[in-house]
Amino acid sequence: MKSAQDRWSRIYITSVEPRVHNGSWPIKRAIGQPVHVRAGAIVDGHDRMCAQLRITQIGGATEELMLTPSGNDEYTATFVPDSPGRYAYQVRAWVDRYGSWQHQFNRRREGGAPEEELQVELLDGAAILESYAANAPLAELTQIMAFVEAYRSGNVEAALDPKTMALVRRHDPQLGAVESEAIAVEVDHPLAACAAWYEFFPRSAADKDGQHATLDDAARRLPGIRDMGFDVVYLPPIHPIGYQFRKGKDNHPTARPDEPGSPWAIGTEGGGHTSVHEDLGGMEALDRFVATADKLGLRVALDIALQCSPDHPWVTSNPQWFRKRADGTIRYAENPPKKYQDVYPFDFECKDWRALWEALKNVFEFWMGRGINIFRVDNPHTKPLAFWEWCLARLKALDPNAIFLAEAFTRPKTMYTLAKLGFNNSYTYFTWRNTKDEIVNYVRELTRTNVVEYFRPNFWPNTPDILHEYLATGGRPAHISRFVLAATLSPVYGVYGPPYEHIVCVQHPDREEYADNEKYEIRNWNWNDPHSLQPLFARVNRIRRENPALQQLREIHFLNTRNPNLIAYYKVADANLVLCVVTLDPYQEQKGTLTLPLEAMGLADHTPFQLDDLLGGNNYIWQGRKHTIRLDPKVMPAQLYRVRKRMRTEADFDYYN
Amino acid sequence: MKSAQDRWSRIYITSVEPRVHNGSWPIKRAIGQPVHVRAGAIVDGHDRMCAQLRITQIGGATEELMLTPSGNDEYTATFVPDSPGRYAYQVRAWVDRYGSWQHQFNRRREGGAPEEELQVELLDGAAILESYAANAPLAELTQIMAFVEAYRSGNVEAALDPKTMALVRRHDPQLGAVESEAIAVEVDHPLAACAAWYEFFPRSAADKDGQHATLDDAARRLPGIRDMGFDVVYLPPIHPIGYQFRKGKDNHPTARPDEPGSPWAIGTEGGGHTSVHEDLGGMEALDRFVATADKLGLRVALDIALQCSPDHPWVTSNPQWFRKRADGTIRYAENPPKKYQDVYPFDFECKDWRALWEALKNVFEFWMGRGINIFRVDNPHTKPLAFWEWCLARLKALDPNAIFLAEAFTRPKTMYTLAKLGFNNSYTYFTWRNTKDEIVNYVRELTRTNVVEYFRPNFWPNTPDILHEYLATGGRPAHISRFVLAATLSPVYGVYGPPYEHIVCVQHPDREEYADNEKYEIRNWNWNDPHSLQPLFARVNRIRRENPALQQLREIHFLNTRNPNLIAYYKVADANLVLCVVTLDPYQEQKGTLTLPLEAMGLADHTPFQLDDLLGGNNYIWQGRKHTIRLDPKVMPAQLYRVRKRMRTEADFDYYN
Repeated sequence: MKSAQDRWSRIYITSVEPRVHNGSWPIKRAIGQPVHVRAGAIVDGHDRMCAQLRITQIGGATEELMLTPSGNDEYTATFVPDSPGRYAYQVRAWVDRYGSWQHQFNRRREGGAPEEELQVELLDGAAILESYAANAPLAELTQIMAFVEAYRSGNVEAALDPKTMALVRRHDPQLGAVESEAIAVEVDHPLAACAAWYEFFPRSAADKDGQHATLDDAARRLPGIRDMGFDVVYLPPIHPIGYQFRKGKDNHPTARPDEPGSPWAIGTEGGGHTSVHEDLGGMEALDRFVATADKLGLRVALDIALQCSPDHPWVTSNPQWFRKRADGTIRYAENPPKKYQDVYPFDFECKDWRALWEALKNVFEFWMGRGINIFRVDNPHTKPLAFWEWCLARLKALDPNAIFLAEAFTRPKTMYTLAKLGFNNSYTYFTWRNTKDEIVNYVRELTRTNVVEYFRPNFWPNTPDILHEYLATGGRPAHISRFVLAATLSPVYGVYGPPYEHIVCVQHPDREEYADNEKYEIRNWNWNDPHSLQPLFARVNRIRRENPALQQLREIHFLNTRNPNLIAYYKVADANLVLCVVTLDPYQEQKGTLTLPLEAMGLADHTPFQLDDLLGGNNYIWQGRKHTIRLDPKVMPAQLYRVRKRMRTEADFDYYN
Repeated sequence: MKSAQDRWSRIYITSVEPRVHNGSWPIKRAIGQPVHVRAGAIVDGHDRMCAQLRITQIGGATEELMLTPSGNDEYTATFVPDSPGRYAYQVRAWVDRYGSWQHQFNRRREGGAPEEELQVELLDGAAILESYAANAPLAELTQIMAFVEAYRSGNVEAALDPKTMALVRRHDPQLGAVESEAIAVEVDHPLAACAAWYEFFPRSAADKDGQHATLDDAARRLPGIRDMGFDVVYLPPIHPIGYQFRKGKDNHPTARPDEPGSPWAIGTEGGGHTSVHEDLGGMEALDRFVATADKLGLRVALDIALQCSPDHPWVTSNPQWFRKRADGTIRYAENPPKKYQDVYPFDFECKDWRALWEALKNVFEFWMGRGINIFRVDNPHTKPLAFWEWCLARLKALDPNAIFLAEAFTRPKTMYTLAKLGFNNSYTYFTWRNTKDEIVNYVRELTRTNVVEYFRPNFWPNTPDILHEYLATGGRPAHISRFVLAATLSPVYGVYGPPYEHIVCVQHPDREEYADNEKYEIRNWNWNDPHSLQPLFARVNRIRRENPALQQLREIHFLNTRNPNLIAYYKVADANLVLCVVTLDPYQEQKGTLTLPLEAMGLADHTPFQLDDLLGGNNYIWQGRKHTIRLDPKVMPAQLYRVRKRMRTEADFDYYN
């Protein structure tokens, strides 16, 4: 029979945070982002406790930290992962026998306990110290035993020696220690936590109108995209496009012979998910495109859509991977009564599912082998969640820097679950959150609830599938507001660039998407247009780079403006504080009264503070809580201020006098 | 190798509620209290799902219910346990293959799909039906196969026959079904969820001043306590009281020979935790007391304090159960520099801990054997949590109707953990929550957070240890307010009766407790005093019995009164709605404006409604949201109204004209 201490413990760990879904799924961090661990632990009576945090990098080293009591039986500690991959952290707690004894001994002394009592208690202290000595190396053993002797000889002063605690703490036999379950942490590349994405169709990158561009043409657009300050260049699928049931312009059920088809109808006899469209210049052109991006400091993201055109090689080589109808034909995609005859979904439940899953995983591995490890995954919610859980775990073991963006526009539980089981970034409802209440409530859900631990929003004001009515009717002011909101509310955001920067506002008559949709035809864009939003993109992305407050998601605070058309918030990271004010009315000037919570912002009521107008380039001095704000959407619908907590020296202010 | 469906599932169960601490601890219900189960479950794509709730009584029957979709991938069902003990519930979900097929078939038909398409799909439907038939008994097999034939012969009408679904649902092979973990439910006796407790010292029950009463004297007080409407009579410890270091009047360190000592200093050579004090009449008097209570419909609760006086028989028979100091003496209770020499705590970690734990459990079992199964446990937080977890599980297996009240006035995590690991009722901070904000916030914490699933508050306005300054200075009005608050905010409450009903307001000069504390001396009380609060106790307890709204904890809604000294709330259970208005100012009249949320209360803005004044016996007609309220503490500091949602007939209102 084991000793009592091995069988039960006086300590109960009541909670360990952060964690996701009771610890079933990892919390997410990027390299350099701290994990603030908070544990609750209790013990009966008045004894003190030691609590330790143990952080293990899977396949790597283990680190140990002591947690600090923060009151009310809570303990805290922070660790900052410095390399990507999977970690686990765990809390261990035990009764601090020596510490409890010393604390009580001091209280006895201070309470005026008689000398006889202190002498008796010293003997107890000696016994505890002696039990610790067994774990100590020889040199320290000698020191501890010297204390034991001093206690035994009745030396009260020795019991108060602060050196003892430091000496013995690490030799505590930790009798009756308890451990929490281990909680997983997934540590990602920093771009998973902060990045600006730019989407464009490479086939539209030609100089000549209507011409099908190659990836070499597209590579010539990269310096411009870099100059606009983007981090990730995301390309819709670049594979051969099927012929059968090819869609024409504006999703017409039949295509004219010269129409290029939708890039999401993947595969011809010439190749499938691991081939590059001939008209894009083939695999070598892609390699050159990636190399150019690399040189510019840009990262390339590919779109992986796990579906086939009827011409995909797998349709003939592996017909068992597709669902058949009772008449023997392969079942095309449909959501009755809608039919998508140009697309065959895979049958993830087919008898040969293991080979199919392996083949699909190999698609990602193929591109990872060519230097691409950022993927936008098309419609992951129409494939089994178990497939993603299996596939992403293996791909991340292969490359812990890989980033997967889930393009799931579906119900909340599915979107959140996809994030839990491994997607590093997620499309969101941001596109449809246009009023102040909608934005505030949604951003609070993403930042103030446990969602922030695993779901990294990637805010897109538009996509090839979505041109919201607000943008279509609001024109240039609406485009500016929504861009600034996306880029400042969320550290990860993206834009389907060309039509956005040229403020294309023509909606399809029946659908919430662009008319003359680039998905079905080649468009021609002006790639260097100073009257477009390109300069705004460049400016806002530079502001993001220069202000750490905008590179994080958690510290965002909405402010009262006394006007439902004016949204204001500040974000803060250490000394950096950025204040954003945006009008949601693209038509009329709006006026409001901004109330600043000065204490929370680290400002004083009676001291002026300086605001650097980051979009306008001006500077202001404000003082006090209430400020009138006025935004004319025709002039500038958004204001970004860096708030300086300390005034500059007077010499800096000559322009102000 | 198992089939794909046995290896992975398309369904993820994302949440199952209610549960406590990730399901580690049971949720609590009393017999007849419903468990509203809410589960989240998702599947890829557009398929439909079946979700089933399985409820198992441990050692009993299993019941199965279908959960109903309530939108947004949530499913709900309710079960009502009808006998005490431990239950487990579990959610099971699977893809509804036939239901999904039929739904899509209907959409095809309604969408005008061509006949050929429907014919092909019918064959798929036939295959699904046929796979279900394997599980059906012969009679139903024949019916299902008739449908299979009809489908195969292209009979579109057969596919729409609503009979099919009812016929086949229960034969679904449930391929790829997933199950949540099982969640435990502890079902208690109804008195655990709703009861009024009355505490008194039986030794003070004599008619003659200063005389030590017996339990037979005390039994003569029971009809009066029953008439005041209490459910549980709680007695402080009734065991022999130690002599060594016996405390005198007012906790004096020494007692005069005629002083009775504190009942919590348990044990003499004559007996310990399973004996009854000779002066109380011994065991036979207790048996008679319990029998009298039984006849009156009252339940007796005993106080179990796991500690010994130095004279307790165990001190000599089992000295190994106590901690020794280095000089060989037994360590008395202390919190340096405070000493409690009249009490020896047990050493729960001693080498002989198994025998000690067993002996302590046997104390409860002994009294359960004498017909007592309600226990107020003294200071459980100074004993190991693991002991309580072990002990309570065994005692409840013995008697699932047993009720344990934790007297733990300590930090929140420990109080909540004691409730999680088995205590059915808990003392609370109510005694120290006297302002409106304090009361509202505390009651919300207890009723609007997950705490409500496991922590059953037992609200006490006073105890022998606590006479709060608010009561001491506020006199009769404060006593009435606090009593009404305790009895209406919480369905379980208690009062240390005699000094409360006689409005004893003399505090000990140094401590927050009664002067001339009954813990250390015999008091004499007037047991039938119409000028005491006894008539109020009777009235309020009758109101509680007559109004189900006051017998539950969850449906409590605080109302705006525009006055911090006036607290108002309503409680509701089905058609019963009780409105409570209490003044927190025991000195001056307070006036406020009550705003009623009429829709939420089930009332209409333009229809008058009737209020029965339950304390005053009047009736009122109100209309609209805003009502002026005025409470004069000298007249009556609390108002309780039953709000009638429907007006009585006009004939009932003649008094009103």
